[in-house]
Amino acid sequence: MNSHRKGSLQERKGKRVRKVPHEKRIHYFEKLGSRSTEFSKERLGGKGAGLAHMRSLGLPVPPGFVITTDVCAEYFDLGEKLPAGLMEEVRENLAKLEKEMGKGFGATEDPLLVSVRSGAAASMPGMMETILNLGLNDETVAWMAGAMENDRTAYDAYRRLIHMFGDVVMGVDHDHFEEVFSNIKERYGASDDSEVPAAGLKELVEKYKQIYEKHTGQGFPQEPQRQLQLAIEAVFRSWNAPRAVRYREINHLRGFMGTAVIVQTMVFGNLDDDSGTGVAFTRNPATGEDELYGEFLVNAQGEDVVAGIRTPRSVLEMGEWNPVVLEELQEMKGILESHFKDMQDLEFTIERGKLYMLQTRRGQRTGAAAVRIAVDMVEDGIITRQEALLRVPSEGMTQFLLPSYAAEDKASVRVLTTGLPASPGAARGKLAFTAEEAVRRTTEGEQVLLVRRETSPDDVDGMHHAQGILTSTGGMTSHAAVVARGWGKCCVVGAGELEINAKQEKVTIGEEEFGPEDTFSIDGATGEVMLGAVPFSEPELSGYFGTVMGWSDEFRTLGIRANADTAEEAERARDFGATGIGLTRTEHMFFGPGRIEAMQEMILSDSKVVRERALAKLLPYQREDFEKILTAMKGLPVTIRLLDPPLHEFLPRDRKRQEFLAEALGISLAMVQKRVEALGEANPMLGHRGCRLAITYPEILVMQVTAIVEAAVACRRNRVRAMPEIMIPLVGAKQELALLRGLVEQTVEEAMKRLEYKGTLEIPIGTMIEVPRAAVTAEEIAEDADFFSFGTNDLTQMAFGFSRDDINSFLPDYLSQGVLPGDPFYSLDRTGVGRLVRMAVEEGLAGNPGLKLGICGEHGGEPESIDFFHEVGLDYVSCSSFRVPVARLAAAQAALRREGWEG
Amino acid sequence: MNSHRKGSLQERKGKRVRKVPHEKRIHYFEKLGSRSTEFSKERLGGKGAGLAHMRSLGLPVPPGFVITTDVCAEYFDLGEKLPAGLMEEVRENLAKLEKEMGKGFGATEDPLLVSVRSGAAASMPGMMETILNLGLNDETVAWMAGAMENDRTAYDAYRRLIHMFGDVVMGVDHDHFEEVFSNIKERYGASDDSEVPAAGLKELVEKYKQIYEKHTGQGFPQEPQRQLQLAIEAVFRSWNAPRAVRYREINHLRGFMGTAVIVQTMVFGNLDDDSGTGVAFTRNPATGEDELYGEFLVNAQGEDVVAGIRTPRSVLEMGEWNPVVLEELQEMKGILESHFKDMQDLEFTIERGKLYMLQTRRGQRTGAAAVRIAVDMVEDGIITRQEALLRVPSEGMTQFLLPSYAAEDKASVRVLTTGLPASPGAARGKLAFTAEEAVRRTTEGEQVLLVRRETSPDDVDGMHHAQGILTSTGGMTSHAAVVARGWGKCCVVGAGELEINAKQEKVTIGEEEFGPEDTFSIDGATGEVMLGAVPFSEPELSGYFGTVMGWSDEFRTLGIRANADTAEEAERARDFGATGIGLTRTEHMFFGPGRIEAMQEMILSDSKVVRERALAKLLPYQREDFEKILTAMKGLPVTIRLLDPPLHEFLPRDRKRQEFLAEALGISLAMVQKRVEALGEANPMLGHRGCRLAITYPEILVMQVTAIVEAAVACRRNRVRAMPEIMIPLVGAKQELALLRGLVEQTVEEAMKRLEYKGTLEIPIGTMIEVPRAAVTAEEIAEDADFFSFGTNDLTQMAFGFSRDDINSFLPDYLSQGVLPGDPFYSLDRTGVGRLVRMAVEEGLAGNPGLKLGICGEHGGEPESIDFFHEVGLDYVSCSSFRVPVARLAAAQAALRREGWEG
Repeated sequence: MNSHRKGSLQERKGKRVRKVPHEKRIHYFEKLGSRSTEFSKERLGGKGAGLAHMRSLGLPVPPGFVITTDVCAEYFDLGEKLPAGLMEEVRENLAKLEKEMGKGFGATEDPLLVSVRSGAAASMPGMMETILNLGLNDETVAWMAGAMENDRTAYDAYRRLIHMFGDVVMGVDHDHFEEVFSNIKERYGASDDSEVPAAGLKELVEKYKQIYEKHTGQGFPQEPQRQLQLAIEAVFRSWNAPRAVRYREINHLRGFMGTAVIVQTMVFGNLDDDSGTGVAFTRNPATGEDELYGEFLVNAQGEDVVAGIRTPRSVLEMGEWNPVVLEELQEMKGILESHFKDMQDLEFTIERGKLYMLQTRRGQRTGAAAVRIAVDMVEDGIITRQEALLRVPSEGMTQFLLPSYAAEDKASVRVLTTGLPASPGAARGKLAFTAEEAVRRTTEGEQVLLVRRETSPDDVDGMHHAQGILTSTGGMTSHAAVVARGWGKCCVVGAGELEINAKQEKVTIGEEEFGPEDTFSIDGATGEVMLGAVPFSEPELSGYFGTVMGWSDEFRTLGIRANADTAEEAERARDFGATGIGLTRTEHMFFGPGRIEAMQEMILSDSKVVRERALAKLLPYQREDFEKILTAMKGLPVTIRLLDPPLHEFLPRDRKRQEFLAEALGISLAMVQKRVEALGEANPMLGHRGCRLAITYPEILVMQVTAIVEAAVACRRNRVRAMPEIMIPLVGAKQELALLRGLVEQTVEEAMKRLEYKGTLEIPIGTMIEVPRAAVTAEEIAEDADFFSFGTNDLTQMAFGFSRDDINSFLPDYLSQGVLPGDPFYSLDRTGVGRLVRMAVEEGLAGNPGLKLGICGEHGGEPESIDFFHEVGLDYVSCSSFRVPVARLAAAQAALRREGWEG
Repeated sequence: MNSHRKGSLQERKGKRVRKVPHEKRIHYFEKLGSRSTEFSKERLGGKGAGLAHMRSLGLPVPPGFVITTDVCAEYFDLGEKLPAGLMEEVRENLAKLEKEMGKGFGATEDPLLVSVRSGAAASMPGMMETILNLGLNDETVAWMAGAMENDRTAYDAYRRLIHMFGDVVMGVDHDHFEEVFSNIKERYGASDDSEVPAAGLKELVEKYKQIYEKHTGQGFPQEPQRQLQLAIEAVFRSWNAPRAVRYREINHLRGFMGTAVIVQTMVFGNLDDDSGTGVAFTRNPATGEDELYGEFLVNAQGEDVVAGIRTPRSVLEMGEWNPVVLEELQEMKGILESHFKDMQDLEFTIERGKLYMLQTRRGQRTGAAAVRIAVDMVEDGIITRQEALLRVPSEGMTQFLLPSYAAEDKASVRVLTTGLPASPGAARGKLAFTAEEAVRRTTEGEQVLLVRRETSPDDVDGMHHAQGILTSTGGMTSHAAVVARGWGKCCVVGAGELEINAKQEKVTIGEEEFGPEDTFSIDGATGEVMLGAVPFSEPELSGYFGTVMGWSDEFRTLGIRANADTAEEAERARDFGATGIGLTRTEHMFFGPGRIEAMQEMILSDSKVVRERALAKLLPYQREDFEKILTAMKGLPVTIRLLDPPLHEFLPRDRKRQEFLAEALGISLAMVQKRVEALGEANPMLGHRGCRLAITYPEILVMQVTAIVEAAVACRRNRVRAMPEIMIPLVGAKQELALLRGLVEQTVEEAMKRLEYKGTLEIPIGTMIEVPRAAVTAEEIAEDADFFSFGTNDLTQMAFGFSRDDINSFLPDYLSQGVLPGDPFYSLDRTGVGRLVRMAVEEGLAGNPGLKLGICGEHGGEPESIDFFHEVGLDYVSCSSFRVPVARLAAAQAALRREGWEG
């Protein structure tokens, strides 16, 4: 081992030393008007900060205080010991609490009871600890029973304390307590907890104390101060319990110091029928409607609502039970929303008719609700448009564009298996096992789902005809996923439980077999594969959606283009607000009858003359395709990428199709096979593709450029303002672009001369930046480029050395071990790939200050990546049409964030 | 087209404007002592500069002058017109020449005759033009004949002028002249030119003039001034003749302005038997011996030596003919060598006993001669050791290490075909068509060549046994080439004419078939494949070699390590001067009996337990291999790279071997096939390999590290100072290295504890930088690395997006069209890949100032790349052992160049 490096990374990391200023360790919930209150979620935890906030606003919060998260960190730094002097401070705050409540902690008469809860900066639901009713002991429970005139409630509280304390603080197995309780219930003939009479509970308390003593070797502590100290330590310890650590790992929760501890006066919702407890959102979290939304239970404690034994009632019915409380709640809603400027998620308890607020936090909501709430709040003058935009999750925008299943419809169906949600939406149909079948049956009027192990370019026609696509292998960036997202077609991939036998036209899931007459429904938002035809609703572009999009366009500076290979897609992109096409792939245009044959003839030929003859057959198809797209996008730019994939992708791999091909071309099967083999590559991703094709076969470029010019001239002559741009893929060296730019310019000139077109036709010529070498030599490449468009898919592949097709064999291990923070094909890797992008931007502009900059990889529609692209100063992003609304909003958010706005 | 970009790159480039200062356009060859002479090759051309030089040294050079290369450039800038005033200047210089010679240009008595020759800065042999005997016309030829008393010589000179002038200046087809000459020869019964009598030549002159007039529409110009002007223009024009342009393209000759024109007094070697002509080197260009080396012909002109009709005599025999001239030549040798400080290549003519020098230039030489000449010149005090080192082509060092064919032995053999010279040396043997056959027959005492379409890791054992390797496919970096170079084994690859049928044990070349009993000899330096057993000589490490190596080590600052996978290679590397092993690949160690089976068992298993069991079987093999290598390199560092290739490379691809494997492991063939298929990858280069293996299968790393520690401890206990270093391949992200470094450290610690080894064992842990992302995030990666070793093969693949295995489908087009200056896998691409290297060096050192830096790709043994690695500040390069001497010298040259030394 190297002597100057001591210890592993883990060890070295653990050494930082924290110092917590003494006077800040505990925060008392000060009442309205007091000034010292701090509301930092980071230090008080989310729950603590909410309580402190509410109390300072004068809301009825049970008095209490918070021990800050810093103390938790110090506790671990000290080797799981409370810092010196902490308990003195706790006692000082407890004294303040006793004074405010007029009760004594541990007093034999009118004792103060408190809860001790954990609360971290981030929500970790169910992961951490709570102990209620501290302060009860054999003496105080008796007083309480008397004072309350309710033995049952008192002893129920005490048995809960012993149980929770034993479990959480002392680690006594939960089951020991449950077993005894079961016996008692049986003995008293009680079918649930609430039917056990006071006598039973008293007996239970005694049994619980025995269990406690048996498993801990000591009696249940009767001194409340001791109960409190042990509880505080237990809450701290729970922060590093394995399940909490794992939860944070899974949810990428990093950089938190620890949990805060909230010590708060107990209130009881289960004292009588004037008591109760409930939860509510200040607005409808599903639709965003401006109304209280929640439920409550009379004579119950908080956990009873969650446990689901009794059915709670809607908050709106509360008026029938206690209209005053309802009115108070409505008042709280107003106060909290205007204070927090956002929809809140509340917990409350009513003790003998008096309302207490136990929690407030930002409410979770659906995408649709987020939009409506944000827009409504702007109209109500609560927030600005800028704040509203930052409040809406841009991902949610897709919900507006696609059909979706209603929760109630899905509730009753059978989910057969779940794959990866590759392209959102809903689709259903009978099962088609080949692309040909999908085409045939659709043409005959059936609705089908295409079910394949994986898809290839051969399947494109069938994919296009099918209602949706379902595959058993492949990831979020597999062929099926990318193509389907491009079309906005519902697609579920990688449903590994499907065993597909295409020849026999059947799919097996577990023991069950399904055939071409069975119907599946797939949910592209969840990856669920359901049996039968599940109803779904068509999208509706509501006014709220339009408002948010309009505001977005006002604030964003990034242009938003779409990737589109057909006029149909281009039109949809325009409908969704794209201001141009950033990527038209030309390769898909070579499939389909008439085209693929000519393409194959071209590829199989050894002679330039034969290639040119075959290309001449393709030219009219290309021209027609281009003319349609240019027409659909009239007045807006359309970036057409010249042929990119290796030629072998266009040749059939199976013997049968090779035979067809040989016959069609009048050559031998052996010849076809030889050529297919010769064109095969060890690493096609790094092979003979992109601009390399144009350098070895310039005639392909000439045909494509000629088709573009002919299409553009035809448009112009029809008074359609066609604005094509020509993009040369996979450039890695200046000279590649210089050479091909020359050839493009010459071809454009010759075509215009041949067409006798006298007008001007400015066709910018640019390149993709997708090879790392292009990024690091961008300055010289830019001299020959009118624009750069980053191909971040390939750039990510080559920068990492990750083949997208092969990454699944190790990516899961990388993610689970935290080697990568996420899939770099999903969200752009800013550190590495991002650095290449930034270099290429800065140096490209140095080489050519007029350079236009865009990105047309999958990252162009992903909000985090869009934020980065805004930051580095691109002119536009281009993404699949269905992600255009997401991109418009994400671009606005990026711009607003840079201006210092917060949501 | 974009309006702000006008014209193609070519056009834009053509626009620079040149201005040639008037007074510099013509340089007269000034005599000894004059000061104004300029010797710039760039402006006078190589030949002109040499002549000017010699004349200034007082050597007998026929007087004359040079029109500079700038004028040629101006000629083209003006649209192929001579600059104004040029011909006046020519006439002024001609007047000076007339005065010096005491003759008149165009004078009817004692006329001055001149030659006009082209001469560029770089040698372009045979590509450019010469016209002799200008100044002859119908009148002067008659005077000349009379004065010389030699009609034959005079009319021969005139007919040559008309022929050359007609051809070069006026474009009259050469064949027209040849045809007439043939008729004349026939008529006079002459079997060659020299037998045609004067009368015949006179007749020929008349016929030539008729041809000239017929094809040009005008008479042959009788005014010498006009002859001269037309000849000058013709020489300029020849610079841009297609064959000259093509020659410069092929030889990457760029940045030259044009050709100079040399106008020089004619001297005649064919006047009588006291006249003659010859060429000589001042030292033996093959061996470097310090003696005049060359040949001469009596009564002949320069082209007669080249034409090869008469057999010239050795210069050393000149004493028998004219000892005075020989003595003069020896004197010239001394003057020129001490002036030019290098061996010279001379042309001379003797006119009636008087010696004239017509050319001097640096003489070409073999690697061995270069070494001897440089060392001798240092010993003679002519040059310094630094100059000597820069004078020796580092590539030549390999000539000392390998067997080689003598030219005389090769002269008589039949070359069947030529492939790529993948690994130098000489080898011969009977043909073995499979690795197994090569092993079997070698074991039985035969010498065999392994002949395969291509090789794979399966063949390694057979490759190792064979005398040499010959393949029909693959390039300079194919498996066979890389492995053979590593071993220093002779190898020829990509001999495309071979059609190999391994099953039938035969190879077809054209119409001929060869089988296992035929013997081939291959030349790894030229790629030639010869029939039969050609004798070759074994290498001898002469004193000259040792001297150069010693000086190199004195001046170089780069460390030189070798790549070696076996103890045998390590020992050789040490013999050749390596000061460490920079790369020990561990994957080759897994082939061979006992090993491959365990490896395959490991790979085919789904469970960690079974994998660990199989790995336990591999551990002793690895330990033993490591112990041997560490022992061979005792006291020097050995960098061991953990397993790198994807696991599927270890599995058999053919059905037969799969069956064997299934049987050996007791599982079904289907199971084996399924697993082979599952492990297959679309792009293995970007797949599950390198450190990704260690992250998903940490047990492999643990086994390898354990074997390294056990080997090192065993060495130390034997008092052998083992110095292993552990290298983690394919790291692209900091966290990969951090995680694996931790695991390595933990494994080292555990192994040392288990071995109860109490000594210190400092094992540096580093990584390869071969993924572009690693280069751009080097600063953070360096924090966990003790060293970086650049894997420039993979870095080049990923930076360019070029698969080395697939590049041959487009690289030839790239090179022929000048898109790339050369194969980036051969010499490092400084612009792109080099930039990544430079970034990683600078930022790596910023992240860890103690970082050691090396390179272990194929570029580590290539001189140009070594120059770059020195420049960016690496600590060492590592290359195959046979290239260690090259690297030692190249490293010294790089260091000397940086200090401003020139060769």
